[in-house]
Parts: sequence; structure tokens; C-alpha cells
Amino acid sequence: MTSESPSRRALIGWGGAGLALGAAAAGGAVAMARTGDDTPAPTTAIPFHGAHQAGIATPVQDRLHFASFDVQTEDRAEFVRMLKDWTAAARRMTAGHPVGEGGFGGLPEAPPDDTGEALGLQPSRLTLTIGFGPSLFEKFGLADARPEALVDLPKFAGDNLDRNRSGGDLCVQACADDPQVAVHAIRNLARIGFGKVVIRWSQLGFGKTSSTTPEAQTPRNLMGFKDGTRNIAGTETDRLKKFVWVDGKDGPDWMAGGSYLVARRIRMHIETWDRTSLQEQEDIFGRDKGEGAPVGKAKERDEPFLKAMLPTAHVRLAHPDSNDGATLLRRGYSFTDGTDGLGRLDAGLFFLAYQKDVRRGFIPVQRNLATDTLNEYIQHVGSAVYAIPPGVRDKDDWWGRALFAGEA
Amino acid sequence: MTSESPSRRALIGWGGAGLALGAAAAGGAVAMARTGDDTPAPTTAIPFHGAHQAGIATPVQDRLHFASFDVQTEDRAEFVRMLKDWTAAARRMTAGHPVGEGGFGGLPEAPPDDTGEALGLQPSRLTLTIGFGPSLFEKFGLADARPEALVDLPKFAGDNLDRNRSGGDLCVQACADDPQVAVHAIRNLARIGFGKVVIRWSQLGFGKTSSTTPEAQTPRNLMGFKDGTRNIAGTETDRLKKFVWVDGKDGPDWMAGGSYLVARRIRMHIETWDRTSLQEQEDIFGRDKGEGAPVGKAKERDEPFLKAMLPTAHVRLAHPDSNDGATLLRRGYSFTDGTDGLGRLDAGLFFLAYQKDVRRGFIPVQRNLATDTLNEYIQHVGSAVYAIPPGVRDKDDWWGRALFAGEA
Repeated sequence: MTSESPSRRALIGWGGAGLALGAAAAGGAVAMARTGDDTPAPTTAIPFHGAHQAGIATPVQDRLHFASFDVQTEDRAEFVRMLKDWTAAARRMTAGHPVGEGGFGGLPEAPPDDTGEALGLQPSRLTLTIGFGPSLFEKFGLADARPEALVDLPKFAGDNLDRNRSGGDLCVQACADDPQVAVHAIRNLARIGFGKVVIRWSQLGFGKTSSTTPEAQTPRNLMGFKDGTRNIAGTETDRLKKFVWVDGKDGPDWMAGGSYLVARRIRMHIETWDRTSLQEQEDIFGRDKGEGAPVGKAKERDEPFLKAMLPTAHVRLAHPDSNDGATLLRRGYSFTDGTDGLGRLDAGLFFLAYQKDVRRGFIPVQRNLATDTLNEYIQHVGSAVYAIPPGVRDKDDWWGRALFAGEA
Repeated sequence: MTSESPSRRALIGWGGAGLALGAAAAGGAVAMARTGDDTPAPTTAIPFHGAHQAGIATPVQDRLHFASFDVQTEDRAEFVRMLKDWTAAARRMTAGHPVGEGGFGGLPEAPPDDTGEALGLQPSRLTLTIGFGPSLFEKFGLADARPEALVDLPKFAGDNLDRNRSGGDLCVQACADDPQVAVHAIRNLARIGFGKVVIRWSQLGFGKTSSTTPEAQTPRNLMGFKDGTRNIAGTETDRLKKFVWVDGKDGPDWMAGGSYLVARRIRMHIETWDRTSLQEQEDIFGRDKGEGAPVGKAKERDEPFLKAMLPTAHVRLAHPDSNDGATLLRRGYSFTDGTDGLGRLDAGLFFLAYQKDVRRGFIPVQRNLATDTLNEYIQHVGSAVYAIPPGVRDKDDWWGRALFAGEA
């Protein structure tokens, strides 16, 4: 999507804004060109309103910017105002508009309402998905509202977690087909949150490793293997209901329509992996590398016969049949963050998994992976868990309203 | 380009490879599917052979992975063999093929010839451009071959260089419209170079900030301003000859057809910038933010009237008329590398500039920027300079042949 031409409508809109602004700048006038909310959204916009937040069952976009924030303010009303401001900004940005009703600018003597680097770019299927971490519920008198399913993750075998890449009071997952659009969104939310929240850590992902569209070509992770062949598709309403969306029976009312997110930064020792034989790589995964077929089968989507694989094969250990049916919706991204002190690429998988209940989702699956031979080549170095509230229903609704409604 | 469907030809090619491999894996056979060099290159491939290296005058791709390497071996013949192996791999990867004549795989009992994560992806206009740093010429008896124009950069006002992000014996610039293709290329070159070279530092860029196609929409940097409006276009043969390509008169024979590259990692203090007024931002750049028009003009491409700008305006100080005509071909990329210890995004511009002679290009321009008010919002934190040898002419030629020819 990054290369597509802006739609004609978008060109006229932005071009007009630019021309008017150029004239305004030349003439010293203070009026800024307006991009009204009544402009029809270009076709690459994902609807922001809905029963569930976008960015979960949405077909996976190409790029990610994920940010975890810590709260600085102790003033609940101020925090609620920020959530409302964030919601308004998210509503505009996902539609392809700059932050701020008056176009990107505002008054010349004030900072611009929008930082500007996404002007002229497509909405690029931007989704913004907010989550609340366990530590948020220690603040603002929220202790009683913490869902039972929002457990602190236990320590897993092999974990080597960096606290500077773990946890956080809240998160925003920005997914888009253009990384500049995703980065712009996180940066503007951080700007709006200045003094109220601060970024604890953030992660860029350059290549999706899972798809939620069953017909699409399955992406490959940095080990060179297809990943997410049997992922939950956004069109599989029944599986989404069963494994992903929280309903009224599962927890507090404010979470109905929400989900839970586990984020894990998984470093891959790719230099070691690259010196491993093809046969060993395929044995470790339980699939062949070229086609992605399960051991003994010919095609990627053939039903795996788990007993044909080594007992330590990744596909076997992670399979729902090995985990009492536990099934995760995955939206992971590959990352490469430069080089470590030993000249090795700091690369791997930023694993994102959505589920109805972490206790019947990620935790049992990850425990079962303790004997996975893949663990010789990977290490979990960051970890976080968040409650994902339901969607924003309309223009009067806002992120977290059901949780904070008493003070809305 | 990242979202386009693989061409039908590519699908047949890869799908066939996958099927054959799946069958091979199922049957335990060792033969791997072959993707011969005779497969016509898909249309998104940039020719690798030419008088100049691709990736300089080539229309700027969307994504970057840049790696600087240090040499570990002291054996000149071994290093030359690696350069030949790199060239063969680069020739295949830029054409959209996996490394290794036998397809990605090879024998099951050996590590695969290709790491696999780009299988099924388009060539994505991948270009790979090699450069030789000053320190390389202290090795392998190359001292006499060092071009006079390859000077060590002086210290500039405001420099705050991290040596772990600076220098290096050689570099490879990988540009592609798909980041996974660029990352795959650098990773496979590092793999092939194992034991001979090691990555000193590397940089991912997610958004191009300059274009070398004059008709294209000018990209915006992370300060929200259009950047590179007056860049040298790849089609401007005369300006390329005058400002970019080394000819026989300019230096050693082995550099004829080459160029010089200056790479600077420029951190932007975007949180501070975002709290600066629109008027101040526009005064600092000397252009308006929306349209990108020079001060007092209406359109982005109107000729700037430098005296209408503040004497400290960036456009005025960087303009060729303020620098005895010095003109750089820029191919910079925006970066965001997570967060620093203070919760600020570690973001900015990875500046890449090509020129015929650094002494009449980057150095005078950067010296003239000492009074640039933009310096309050940016800091140069990484720096490197490289001699870029001429292009690889044909299938028997290799990167650096003219320099190392005595031992070829």
C-alpha cells in the first residue's frame, strides 16, 4: 500500500490545503486551510467505531509501531481528559486527517496541532488499539475494576526479561501499511499526552509475521519459515467469539467486547540459526521451509499429523491439540533494531497475541513450549500484558469510557 | 510497492519451487527445487550491472537497511574471495532470486544457501551499494590507492558523535520498497562474510526523506517539512556528471564512475520541536510547512529568494548559492529506534549524501550550517564517509575489482 498513488480526492484535499497555506504564509495571514471532517474518507481507511477495537481482527497491516506508556499524572480527571483527546485524535488520524479540527496548522504563534509528517499520505489502513496494563489498576482508584483474567504473567523457562522493554500502564498498538503513518500516530499521541503520560518503551515492526486473511500468502518470520498458517482469520466470527472477544460472562461488564493482549519481544539468534542445517531447522519447526507443509504432508494448509513430528517440534507443542484447545490470534511483526555489542543483528519477533483469557491462552501454550528446541535459538527479552477495552461506539464515545464512566 | 501482488510469473516460479520442495521433504529426497538464473527478472528488479552502482541515481526506494562493517581477516585473498561471493549474492538478490544457485535450500545436512525470509517476495527494486571507508586503506597494502578526496571528516560545530555509530571499513546500503527484502540482503551478506567481516553498526530507515524523481511528491521528514525539493534527479545527466560521478580527472583510475558517500545519523529532538510555534518552525526552515514554498513564494518549486529568509534559515544556509555551488545528491531516510532513557522517541534523519568530492560537497555545506537555528533541535550523533567504487559491469566483474585487480 505504501506505493499507491494518493486518490484524486485526497490530492485535491491536500493540494488545496497546501495552496491556501502557501498563500497564507506569503501574505502573513493567520487563517489556516481547513480539512473538514465531512471529507469522505479515502478507501484505505479502516472504520474507527465499532463494538470491538480495530487492529485485532482487522487484516494485518504491513507495519507496526507499538508504544507502552507510564502514567505521570495523579489526577484522574486530567487522565480522563487525555483519553478523550486521544480518542478524538485517533478518530481523525485513522480517517487520514491531521490532528486538530483546523487542519494541521492552527495559529502561527502556537505549536501546530499536528506534527505534519503524514500530510499527503494515505490513511494506509491505520488502526490504533489501546490497552490497559495491570499497573494502571493500582492508580486512580481502579483496583476493584481490574479483571481477574488480567493476571501478571508468570516467569517462563528461558525468560530473560529487560524491565525497560516490559510492562507499562497502558499501550497503543499502531498498525498501518505505511510506517510513517504508524510512527506519526504514536508520536502525536505522545505529544498530546505530554505531562500526563510518558513512553516507557516502544517497538517498530517492519514485517508482519502473521496474517488474519486466510487467502493471503502466509508471511515468513526472520528464521525464514512461514508463520501463522493456522491463525484465526478476521472473518471467522465463531472462532473470534470463542477465543478472542470477551463477553458478559467472562469478566467485568466494562470489558464486554474487549480482549487481552500479550506482547513479547523475542530475540532471535539468527547468526547461530543461519549455521544450522536445513534438516535441523525443519525438524525444529515441524514444517518444511520452502512450502511450509507439516512433516509428512505436501501442502502448507494440510492438517498436521502431530505424531509424525519430533515431540519437541514447535508446531506440535504450540498446536491447540497439545494445549487443551488453547488458540491465540497472532499479529506479530519482525524487528531489526541495529546491532548488539558483538556485531550481531538485534533482530527477532515482536509477538502480539490476542485472546479471551490469558490463563487459558498464552500461559498454557508458553508453558508447553518449555521443551521446544527452538528455545536454543530464541530468547524472550520483553513482556507485557494488557486488557483491551471494547471499541469506541460512536463520536460521543471514548477510549476507556466504560471503565472510567463514573467520572465521565 | 509492498502491497502489490507477486507477478504471475513469480507466483508460478515460487509456487513451483514450494511444491517440489514439499514433495521432496515428504519423500525424504535431498534434491532441492531450482530457480535458475534464466528466469526472467520480475519487473520490480533494478539492473545490477552498469557503469555506476545502482542505489545512487536510482529513484529512491521506500525503505533502507544500511550496514557498516569492520574487516576481521588479514588475508587479502580471502577478503577478495568474499567480495566476489558478495557480488554473486547481490546479483541474485537484486534480481529477486535467493542466494545460491540451487535455490534457497541446498543439501538438508548443510545450512541453507539463503536464510529464506524473502522467499515469495518481489525484488522490490532492491539495490545494494558498496563503499570503502578510510580505515580500509590502512589494510591489505592499500595505502597508496586511497583517493585524496576520501578525507577524514573534520569535527563540525555541535557534533556529538558516538563511535559505535560511526566509521567502518566498508558499508553496504540496501534500499528496497519492502523492508524485509532490504533486511534479508544485509543479513545474508553478513552471513556470507562471517569470520571475514563483522557488522560495526547498522541502521534501518522507514521513510525516505528525499526523492530523485522530480515529478514525485516530495517526502516529509520527521519535523513535518518537505525535504529534498531541489535534489538532483536521477535523470539529470548533466548535474550527476558535474556533482556526483567521479571521472578520470578527479582521482585514482579505480574510482572512475564512482562517487563519495557521507552518512550522518541526525537525532531530532522532536518533543521540543513539537512545542515550537508554527511561525518559528517556518522561519527556521525558510519554507512554509503545508506547501513547502520558500519564504515569500507560493509554490514548493518556486525559486527561493534567499534574502527574504532569515540569515540563519536552513534553506538559505544549505543552498548552493550560499556554498559556491556545492550540491549534494541526498537519499536520506527517517528513523525511529525505540525510546531513550527519558521516554523520548529516539528518532531523526539518517542523512545519506553522494558527491564527486567531499571537500567540495558535504564539508563546506556542513560548515556553513554552523549558524543554522535548526541546530537547536537536532544533533549529529553518527558519522561515516566512504569511497563508492564504480558499478559492476557484467557477470565476470565484481565489487572492488578495479581496486584489488592486481590480485584478482
